[in-house]
Amino acid sequence: MPNRDDCLQLDAHDPLAPLRAAFELPPSVVYLDGNSLGARPRAAAARAAQVVQQEWGEGLIRSWNSAGWFALPRRLGDRLAPLIGAGAGEVLVTDTTSVNLFKLLGALLRLQHERDARRRVIVSERGNFPTDLHIAQGLARMLRQGHELRLVDRAEDIPAALGDDVAVLMLTQVDYRTGALHDMAALTRLAHERGALALWDLAHSAGALPVDLRGADADAAVGCTYKYLNGGPGAPAFLWIAPRWQGVLETPLSGWWGHAEPFAMEPQYRPDAGIGRFLCGTQGIVSQALVECGLEVFERTDMAAVRHKSLALTDLFIALVEQRCGAHPLTLITPRQHERRGSQVSWQHPQGYAVMQALIGRGVIGDYREPGILRFGFTPLYTRFIDVWDAVEALRAVLDGEEWKQERFQVRTAVT
Amino acid sequence: MPNRDDCLQLDAHDPLAPLRAAFELPPSVVYLDGNSLGARPRAAAARAAQVVQQEWGEGLIRSWNSAGWFALPRRLGDRLAPLIGAGAGEVLVTDTTSVNLFKLLGALLRLQHERDARRRVIVSERGNFPTDLHIAQGLARMLRQGHELRLVDRAEDIPAALGDDVAVLMLTQVDYRTGALHDMAALTRLAHERGALALWDLAHSAGALPVDLRGADADAAVGCTYKYLNGGPGAPAFLWIAPRWQGVLETPLSGWWGHAEPFAMEPQYRPDAGIGRFLCGTQGIVSQALVECGLEVFERTDMAAVRHKSLALTDLFIALVEQRCGAHPLTLITPRQHERRGSQVSWQHPQGYAVMQALIGRGVIGDYREPGILRFGFTPLYTRFIDVWDAVEALRAVLDGEEWKQERFQVRTAVT
Repeated sequence: MPNRDDCLQLDAHDPLAPLRAAFELPPSVVYLDGNSLGARPRAAAARAAQVVQQEWGEGLIRSWNSAGWFALPRRLGDRLAPLIGAGAGEVLVTDTTSVNLFKLLGALLRLQHERDARRRVIVSERGNFPTDLHIAQGLARMLRQGHELRLVDRAEDIPAALGDDVAVLMLTQVDYRTGALHDMAALTRLAHERGALALWDLAHSAGALPVDLRGADADAAVGCTYKYLNGGPGAPAFLWIAPRWQGVLETPLSGWWGHAEPFAMEPQYRPDAGIGRFLCGTQGIVSQALVECGLEVFERTDMAAVRHKSLALTDLFIALVEQRCGAHPLTLITPRQHERRGSQVSWQHPQGYAVMQALIGRGVIGDYREPGILRFGFTPLYTRFIDVWDAVEALRAVLDGEEWKQERFQVRTAVT
Repeated sequence: MPNRDDCLQLDAHDPLAPLRAAFELPPSVVYLDGNSLGARPRAAAARAAQVVQQEWGEGLIRSWNSAGWFALPRRLGDRLAPLIGAGAGEVLVTDTTSVNLFKLLGALLRLQHERDARRRVIVSERGNFPTDLHIAQGLARMLRQGHELRLVDRAEDIPAALGDDVAVLMLTQVDYRTGALHDMAALTRLAHERGALALWDLAHSAGALPVDLRGADADAAVGCTYKYLNGGPGAPAFLWIAPRWQGVLETPLSGWWGHAEPFAMEPQYRPDAGIGRFLCGTQGIVSQALVECGLEVFERTDMAAVRHKSLALTDLFIALVEQRCGAHPLTLITPRQHERRGSQVSWQHPQGYAVMQALIGRGVIGDYREPGILRFGFTPLYTRFIDVWDAVEALRAVLDGEEWKQERFQVRTAVT
């Protein structure tokens, strides 16, 4: 079992180690919550100042053209595309994950209605991130066309749920609580065999591991830029549409930015021929521009290297916690098999909430999710092996010293 | 007719003159496009740096609580409310105008369906801003329940269009091209008499003139923060719901931020009891935070004073253009009556596009809209009477000198 010096040695030989300098991290913090909000790229400060002071303040309205604001959703989409196995012109960075899910699910349900109107079921997992389920529920309720959401409790139950009434299989590739990774290609193939379309949420996989949407033959996808892509708090989400559905799918959210000629100001909506039709309203440019600072860092490495380090970090974390905190009631809920694991490790503990607060009190930032789950995200671009060691030692101190019993760690706050 | 010195005197006695110092404006520019993108409040630079460097960079995930990120849409909504005649807890700053229109129109159509399912028509103006019409078209097409958009060519035709099949009257209070101002109270009353609900778009009125949503008894409204409210490029939009519909209307875009307990992570959507249910996904915090810098400036004056100056500016502009550019084919398409005018003045010219480009070449920034329309927006917080004089002199030079005939002013760009 490695000791602290071994961890320092791992860092010394880590080819991704230099990328940590591209991020600003508080010196006294071990940040293991990049799966919730990625750390700030150093370049983001100057970029924010540029957008606010020069582009907005001096360029004013002219910056829509001169600073390329209007092109940002497509340009960022093209830059993000290689990270998810997509091609140019297939991705937009725009709106929120929830709104993009609504657009794509609405579009896919409409397509299925035209092919076979009996297919009105959306299959997903009960443990999927709530907004995915909520969006499907709201959409189905609004359509009043007999659509319903069918939830399975375990991934193994998905095949049985894919009956001939299913329109769309909607899954998140990496589970936000357990970090379990789906086999996207196999499940997409199964969905297609059953006549369903496959819609993927990449919130916890884009930037965390190699994703191959084209290779998996998926139909559509959404994802998040503020987690592993380090785009900034609440940074705009992305959406992808398979080449075969480009120009075919219709967005229910047909706003003017998706018009074939927005500035022709026509009263009748005419969709853009390409991915642009899935734009809707005017985008928040300052938040959007910062996404680019996160994407730039990925161009200095590749997703295979990121994945290699991610697995090494999470393997080490699991091994050290089991070795050094083994006397405590921690249950690993993240799969041990590499091919089933994302880039996070989650443990259940009867006092999970208070344990996490006490850990944060020691400067080790993970987060908490119901029920009783300690989540630790590992972003290979800036997380070191020594961070893993230090985090485990802090966890050991919290547990051995029963620090979590202090009253201040028991008080619940709105967001954790 | 006033001369240049008279304009300087008007500025010297203008009670709003000190507010100009709250904005950063390039020295060589006369900015008359605040109806498209408001100028930058000085405070926005420091606020952007604070959000990016301290709140994101140092606070990291903790800032959702400690920096109040999660509360921003409601807090900004409460701060904006007085400008539009709304109460606390009735307004959210979130998403885009297009997305918010979709939410509210979807909610109102659903409500009407439950009250009288035969009411399936949305009445609007053909000259309404395109995205309003496009959103209604996309929604109707998606619902497949026989909804349709009925467009009138002239405001006078609205009463005749309000038959007993009408669900919603959807209007923009100030026309984006002509600057014509609707009588919100009268039209809302008429809609209600005919059994329809009234949905208002305040994109060109919020921050431009006193708006009284409660006084007008409107049902719901959306609006924009990046024009007269100076919130930043593409800054998030707002929405308002009348007290009588709070807790009644259901959003079709039911995302996790609108859940009664977002962090309970329940698979089943349960709407927040109040305005919060009209939140959807995670918001772009950097863009959102900057909205506050624009709103702060309004707290140093009141909308009656803003309106007084707005009318003085637009009266002066109309008079000077007619006096000094009277030999040229400029047609005023903005109403002369104060009670029918917003805070912009528009002229049609056979070579409108090139004239505007030449004017911008001289540092006077207005914008162009089809067909042949020169738009000039007057933001009383930072526009001076001397700016009006100088803008008219520049326009006179462009027209008298036929500068617009230069080839470089004829080339069309994507956004103007």
